[in-house]
Formats: sequence, structure tokens, C-alpha cells
Amino acid sequence: MRLLGLDPGLRHTGWGIIEAEGNTLRHLANGAISSDGNLSLSERLVQLYDGISKVILDWQPAEAAVEETFVNKNPVSTLKLGQARGISLLVPSLNGLPVEEYAPNKIKKSVVGAGHAGKDQIHAMVGMLLPGCTIANEHAADALAVAICHAHYAGSNRNLKKATMMAGRAP
Amino acid sequence: MRLLGLDPGLRHTGWGIIEAEGNTLRHLANGAISSDGNLSLSERLVQLYDGISKVILDWQPAEAAVEETFVNKNPVSTLKLGQARGISLLVPSLNGLPVEEYAPNKIKKSVVGAGHAGKDQIHAMVGMLLPGCTIANEHAADALAVAICHAHYAGSNRNLKKATMMAGRAP
Repeated sequence: MRLLGLDPGLRHTGWGIIEAEGNTLRHLANGAISSDGNLSLSERLVQLYDGISKVILDWQPAEAAVEETFVNKNPVSTLKLGQARGISLLVPSLNGLPVEEYAPNKIKKSVVGAGHAGKDQIHAMVGMLLPGCTIANEHAADALAVAICHAHYAGSNRNLKKATMMAGRAP
Repeated sequence: MRLLGLDPGLRHTGWGIIEAEGNTLRHLANGAISSDGNLSLSERLVQLYDGISKVILDWQPAEAAVEETFVNKNPVSTLKLGQARGISLLVPSLNGLPVEEYAPNKIKKSVVGAGHAGKDQIHAMVGMLLPGCTIANEHAADALAVAICHAHYAGSNRNLKKATMMAGRAP
């Protein structure tokens, strides 16, 4: 199953595409969509919308996962991030993809094994979990981490559903 | 010129359409787009996207104005509002409309004449400024107030530009 991970941000929204088959993960592509700080806010949101739409069109993922935003102490930053995040949640859903959200700690735990890993650790572990992958930048690394986290949890959920159904069918 | 005013909110996004010719304002339509709290966040944002898209398709406004979000002390509320606000800024811009933002105090001042008016005062003044208009609810009233504010400032800006151009052309 092909998965899209998104790490939302107004300046840079990271994205990553992986293929998950059972416990095997394969890297397909990653990058970041940047918005032009000289444009108006609405024009910048259109740039994010266009960029995410193009990634979905190019790679045709089946599901999407978005990092839950760290609620900043600075309300102005929180608002900015919220606006960018709205676009990351909207576009996959507009394209018919189910969208799951994961808290930063959950993502770190499923990639590094601990909830309080640093940026460098995540970047390094993503590289190890997806051999042969060249990571464009830290936003793309975070986006791939979200996709990996989703592969982990969505896989478990699907197995759980299957097991429950089979248990139901047993005599 | 036909103007769209938007008052963003995740639960209810208010909208209002007015026609502004010189100093004359005329009401065309107003309402609110609601999202279903039982759905996922991404699905709710799609509902707002669809609703705003339909208003623009139905009424073909030339310009849009969005209320600047009051940065709440509760960061979770600020994030929610930010996500909804992203959609209010995105959709008009996707449809080629210029989008202006106005601070709540500026809107209140241009409608009521004071920066610290209450909801009821705004509702009443919007009704007086747009005779014959039936206001759907408080979100629609706020959206009409944003449209009125934009008519005021955009009109002044256009006059100023014209005057500057004419002054530049003078011998």
C-alpha cells in the first residue's frame, strides 16, 4: 500500500511517499513544498494546495498521514501553522484519501523507539529504515517519519480488524 | 462591485455577499456553512471547502475579505480556528479572487463606528446598513460586516489610486 506522509508548515510543507507491504517499507520519493514569503497569505496557501495536489497526482498514494501540530506557546505561530495544516488535511481528503493524524511523540516512538528523539536522530533512523533513500531536507525527513508511523499503526489496525473478523467467523 | 465577506470557524463559517457601488451598499445573500462534528477534521475541512466553493460559484463575487482571527489564549482553539481559516483564505484565491484580511477592531469601527462594539450592536448596524436584509445568524452577520468593511477600505484605496494616477498625469 502506498502512503503519503505530510509535515505541515506555512514556509515549508514536507512530504514523503513510501510503499508498505507487510513489515517491509520501501522509499519512493520525498521533498518539500515551499511558499513564497513575499506573497499574500492566501496566495501562499494556494502554493501549498497546488504542491500537495501535484504530489498526490504524481504518486497516487492510497492513504495519507499528517503530523499533529505541536501547539506553540506563541499564538501567532500556532495560527500560522494551523492555516498551513488545514491545507495538508484538506487536499488528501479532497482526493478521496483517508487521512490519519499522529502526535509528534507517537511518530518519534515508532521511528526511533523513544518519544523524545532529536531531529538528527529521526533523520538518521528514517535513512536506516528506508535504505537507499536520499532525504531532501528536515521537512521531508519528518514527513517520511509520519508515513513510517502510519505504516506501523495502520498495518496493526488492519491485522487487528482481520483477526477480529476471523475470530467472529470461528465456530 | 460584488464582494464576499467570510467569518471563518471550524463549526460555522459565516458568509455574506454585497454589491458596492460608490457609497451605496446592497445586500444580496448571507448564510453559514456548518461542518459535522462527528466527521474527521479533514472531512470537516472538505465540507467548508465545498460550501465556500458553492457560494463563489453561485454568486460570482469579484473580491473577498476575511476576518483576521482573534488569537485566542487557548492554543488548541487557535489551532482549530487557524485550520478553518486556511480554507476561507484558500478557496477565494483558488478561484482567482483577491483576498483582503481585516482585524476585528477595524471591522467593528467601519460598521459601528467604534472598535469595541458587541455582537448585538454589529448585528443591528449591519441590518441598518443593508436595508431589507434578513440575517441568517451571528456568523452571517459578522461575514456581512467584513464585506462592508472591505467595501469601505477597498473603495477608499481605489479612489486614492485613481487620485494618485491623475495627480501623476497632471502637467
